[in-house]
Amino acid sequence: MENNFLKKEVSRRNVLKAGGIGMAGLFIGASGAGSLLSMTASADKKSTGTVSFYGKHQAGITTDTQNHLYFAALMLTTTDVADVKKLLKEWTESAASMAEGKLIGKPAENVLLPPDDTGEAAGLDASNLTMTFGVGPGFFEKLNLSSKKPKELAALPAFSFDALEEEWSGGDLCIQACADDPQVAFHAVRNLVRIARGKAQLKWTQAAFQRTKQANTESETPRNLFGFKDGTGNPDHTNNSLMNDLVWVNDGWMTGGTYMVVRRVQMFIEVWDRTAIGEQEATFGRYRDSGAPMSGKKEFDPVQIDKTDENGNKLMPADSHTALAHGDGKMKLLRRSYSYADGLDKKTGSFDAGLLFISFQKSVSNQFIPIQTRLANKDKLNEYTIHRGSAVFACLPGVKKGGWLGETLFR
Amino acid sequence: MENNFLKKEVSRRNVLKAGGIGMAGLFIGASGAGSLLSMTASADKKSTGTVSFYGKHQAGITTDTQNHLYFAALMLTTTDVADVKKLLKEWTESAASMAEGKLIGKPAENVLLPPDDTGEAAGLDASNLTMTFGVGPGFFEKLNLSSKKPKELAALPAFSFDALEEEWSGGDLCIQACADDPQVAFHAVRNLVRIARGKAQLKWTQAAFQRTKQANTESETPRNLFGFKDGTGNPDHTNNSLMNDLVWVNDGWMTGGTYMVVRRVQMFIEVWDRTAIGEQEATFGRYRDSGAPMSGKKEFDPVQIDKTDENGNKLMPADSHTALAHGDGKMKLLRRSYSYADGLDKKTGSFDAGLLFISFQKSVSNQFIPIQTRLANKDKLNEYTIHRGSAVFACLPGVKKGGWLGETLFR
Repeated sequence: MENNFLKKEVSRRNVLKAGGIGMAGLFIGASGAGSLLSMTASADKKSTGTVSFYGKHQAGITTDTQNHLYFAALMLTTTDVADVKKLLKEWTESAASMAEGKLIGKPAENVLLPPDDTGEAAGLDASNLTMTFGVGPGFFEKLNLSSKKPKELAALPAFSFDALEEEWSGGDLCIQACADDPQVAFHAVRNLVRIARGKAQLKWTQAAFQRTKQANTESETPRNLFGFKDGTGNPDHTNNSLMNDLVWVNDGWMTGGTYMVVRRVQMFIEVWDRTAIGEQEATFGRYRDSGAPMSGKKEFDPVQIDKTDENGNKLMPADSHTALAHGDGKMKLLRRSYSYADGLDKKTGSFDAGLLFISFQKSVSNQFIPIQTRLANKDKLNEYTIHRGSAVFACLPGVKKGGWLGETLFR
Repeated sequence: MENNFLKKEVSRRNVLKAGGIGMAGLFIGASGAGSLLSMTASADKKSTGTVSFYGKHQAGITTDTQNHLYFAALMLTTTDVADVKKLLKEWTESAASMAEGKLIGKPAENVLLPPDDTGEAAGLDASNLTMTFGVGPGFFEKLNLSSKKPKELAALPAFSFDALEEEWSGGDLCIQACADDPQVAFHAVRNLVRIARGKAQLKWTQAAFQRTKQANTESETPRNLFGFKDGTGNPDHTNNSLMNDLVWVNDGWMTGGTYMVVRRVQMFIEVWDRTAIGEQEATFGRYRDSGAPMSGKKEFDPVQIDKTDENGNKLMPADSHTALAHGDGKMKLLRRSYSYADGLDKKTGSFDAGLLFISFQKSVSNQFIPIQTRLANKDKLNEYTIHRGSAVFACLPGVKKGGWLGETLFR
């Protein structure tokens, strides 16, 4: 950190801009500086901003999606409630600090002690880091808190074609770290896991990405590894009233929280790449280039599963992914998925690549399960994908300044 | 896309910079708007630019390091030289196209055919994508080209403490794709591997990252996953004369090429994180916060391995990583390494994280091998790292427009 009042307040990047702003003031008068300043502040949000850790809800759920994800599921190694409360308080303090782009703990002064922070994010700004914490079904069992376990936090049913592997499934706790810098996201998970030592240990992790935010494409829907725009029909995460309907729980200690489903979906990209484009589009139910549903011409045209051509044939194949996911259009959930590419699948010699599907919903039983049941039974896309991992978590309510993660659960 | 003429032309990031710098121009006459635009175009280079595929040397070697790497090693499945020449020509054409941010092949028109391009990078810009191609020792053996095999392209000797695994080692061909967008880097490797079908297949891959470029920190040295600045002593890759001395081969068909060493170095980050900061610094031979060698105070102070304190004790521990890597300071190589974080190491329950060490050098036997021999025998850092993978490649000379990869080899 350099010795400059501006630099103490903001990242060096912003200082550069602020330097520019000062120049403008020199030439155009005081009012010009003000308007330019507000422009830079809002425009900067996307790339190097800060997302507050505190709020009615946790960040990382209805936050604009960042470019990188590091997801970790942990298993409790203690059954002592006091230990776990201590962990959640320490996580709160550290996460709030990292969300501001700060290192955790104190600077290393005593050479005989390990440093509080592992250090690899020193000099990097917050990069819109969010850390979202959840608890799984086993959390309540191990801590003898079954009376507090929400009904919605049940193990998911087995779906047709599931090929779940224990190494990609479950968890008593989870941390979803998202940031516009992968090193910042990894640093967050690493330090939070380090703090948990003796209380919880890693079960599985997944690094994932989506298209980088780019100047000209920020409002475009990202493409998945099948090359298709994915997320066009996602509900608007900036619409609070809609999010209250679909995402946020309003019941007991979970008020302000939500339920998270995570599925590790391997995509057989080599097989897909050998498939005719017409077949790809009929399978996905959208046109590849435009992203339009096959019942329309433009990306955001409505999905109309019963619309027919002049011969009475349905425009959207009934077994297409988009038609089945849409159903009658009444059930929605908020998706916040990322692509992964983990190199070679040693079993097949193909890429182990796919989607870390993540959805948030008020009710797993009313939202995720019926949709996934339809997809699992009939989706033509199942020829090209397989679900390798599955987990469900109750995402804790947001934290007020001075409060801590899980406070309402333990109150 | 926002409705603003500036935002249509250039990234938001650069608009802001230009806004600051060019303000004077903007307000003192109509010409200001024009100069503002041209300035933003050049300022954009770092984040969303294009690196030419063509040149005397391949890109991705002395190119400014991008934020993301996708590395792939392949094995030939043909012994037919004509097949391999065809592959190298197809790779040339596709790589040149992708380097410009274009999709490969033609747009999908016939719905009965698979698309030429897998599509997930549609709408994304070039993101400084470079693809660097190399051939391993097995390439010459399988194609019965032993007379062309460079002496420097020999299997590396076994080093002390090597724990190499076949699944992270070797390769008859390699592709190093680097970009500022992970989806762009993955897309490149995926499509190049797809083109190789029937001629070569994947052996191993590694996705990796380093700190994201940030406006204010571009000239800072990245930190590795031990939290230390890593690369301070790297030779200046923009110094052509130095690169001619250290990197570029000037001999026969390899003229303009170089040799690449790749080592997958797992770092025991949990053990490191429990180590006292004083011990960490003595092990690395640098101070963590500043990056200064222990013989100095500032990051770029010279490494002086014989400098002593007032009591005659050496300031740099003789077994520190920096002291041993430096040696007498006469042997250097160009490092271009990336960090990886592959989740859980199932053997240990710890993170499988570390460094994909990549170095380029004119002579493996004179540069990499002596340095690595010193490090392998004495480096105190060996307590915290283990080499799991190793490969060596001859990076082909650069390609002229109209030429193709490997042309001089087959001429």
